[in-house]
Amino acid sequence: MGAGPGDPELWTVRALKRVQEADLVLYDALVDAEALRELTAAPCFCVGKRAGRASVKQDTINKLMIRAARQGKRVVRLKGGDPFVFGRGAEEALALAHAGVPFEVVPGVTTAVAAPELAGIPVTHRGIASGFLVLAGQTGEALEATLAAIRPQSVTLVSMMGLMHRGELATRLIAHGWSADTRAAIVCGASTADEWTWTGRLADVESVAPPEGIPGVVVVGEVVQVRDALFVRLKADTTYEAAADEVKYGRS
Amino acid sequence: MGAGPGDPELWTVRALKRVQEADLVLYDALVDAEALRELTAAPCFCVGKRAGRASVKQDTINKLMIRAARQGKRVVRLKGGDPFVFGRGAEEALALAHAGVPFEVVPGVTTAVAAPELAGIPVTHRGIASGFLVLAGQTGEALEATLAAIRPQSVTLVSMMGLMHRGELATRLIAHGWSADTRAAIVCGASTADEWTWTGRLADVESVAPPEGIPGVVVVGEVVQVRDALFVRLKADTTYEAAADEVKYGRS
Repeated sequence: MGAGPGDPELWTVRALKRVQEADLVLYDALVDAEALRELTAAPCFCVGKRAGRASVKQDTINKLMIRAARQGKRVVRLKGGDPFVFGRGAEEALALAHAGVPFEVVPGVTTAVAAPELAGIPVTHRGIASGFLVLAGQTGEALEATLAAIRPQSVTLVSMMGLMHRGELATRLIAHGWSADTRAAIVCGASTADEWTWTGRLADVESVAPPEGIPGVVVVGEVVQVRDALFVRLKADTTYEAAADEVKYGRS
Repeated sequence: MGAGPGDPELWTVRALKRVQEADLVLYDALVDAEALRELTAAPCFCVGKRAGRASVKQDTINKLMIRAARQGKRVVRLKGGDPFVFGRGAEEALALAHAGVPFEVVPGVTTAVAAPELAGIPVTHRGIASGFLVLAGQTGEALEATLAAIRPQSVTLVSMMGLMHRGELATRLIAHGWSADTRAAIVCGASTADEWTWTGRLADVESVAPPEGIPGVVVVGEVVQVRDALFVRLKADTTYEAAADEVKYGRS
């Protein structure tokens, strides 16, 4: 089950129901534990990484789920964002299927789309980007292979879990022909009280210092302009015309 | 505001609240109108395409929203999936910002991820795909340019609103070096009573006949194997080992 980007109001109605009916909840570090415990009387255990402590091993999580299910318990496995986007949700589903444990998958609001969106950045926008590519926080050869596969400036890039390696991402993109001036954004803690957003040039992504300990996404592409246009318009009507030209609004 | 793939239980809790508090709802054709009317006493108008009738013009939608907002009404603009994924949501947000109308954006469960997911297909899966590219239903030169930008078999492709042009998509992908045997899926009406799924080879995408009048997504990539493995395991335990090898489960 997906818990969305953070704010419990961005859970689906079904997720809320399932947690209320649960006998056991196993949740990841990105889930708002306080909100979770207010929503359910079931025991809730964090099985994700937090505060330097290693996460519970995948195999152990699978065994916990299967054992509880065989005891007749309704188990909720709650993950940040959507469970099938870099969430190993499908691996867990396969383990359950193998064990003969019936299950359902409840999609969530994916952070890949919602984090930029809540910062005023659409991953697609008519006249600017007609597609978006979502990547995990790859490094080294894996990142190199992916970046070699896409033409510079062709789509919006969203890198999840890539904050630590954002310098490498920017350097490699520029080496692959992306303009150093490509618009970029970093959005941390979307939909939470810790929300923090930076926008600027691709070349400056590395030197930015996002708040520590808050997960974030890196967005690369001209769609970042839309945030600036929205923001400018909300703040000062006088600059509207410039903003409108910039984002090519109203070309229909 | 996003309404997710179809089932009202996949609305966010916030979307539900906003509709309940609304004075006016303008919804797209992909939204479940019957469910919507049960959730709110506000007048609800469909402004999307349906049954051969053209949709209301974008400029007219913007004017309707702005006029109602200036009359002090709480207006909900409800779109299928997520409003910032090919939904023109950002264009409408810009129009509101320009008019000085305060607004919020409520992310939804995007059909790009949820439709495959509900059919048992993760857009990413360890050892199979470490990224996914979401495209609108482009054709001709626009599609050609995008496909030229990605290396064959490098990422999962999800084409939204591309059912009608699926033959062109498949032909162009194969011309660009994708194997005709690449796994592919078509998922229509995800999370609704009309849900329909096909899986097969990329080369066979064109000859499939999905049900008419139901929107769907086309998925191209080896992640489609995961559905088959999940399905096989749920149906017949004996074939588990083959399925496990096929999807490389448990390589951690």
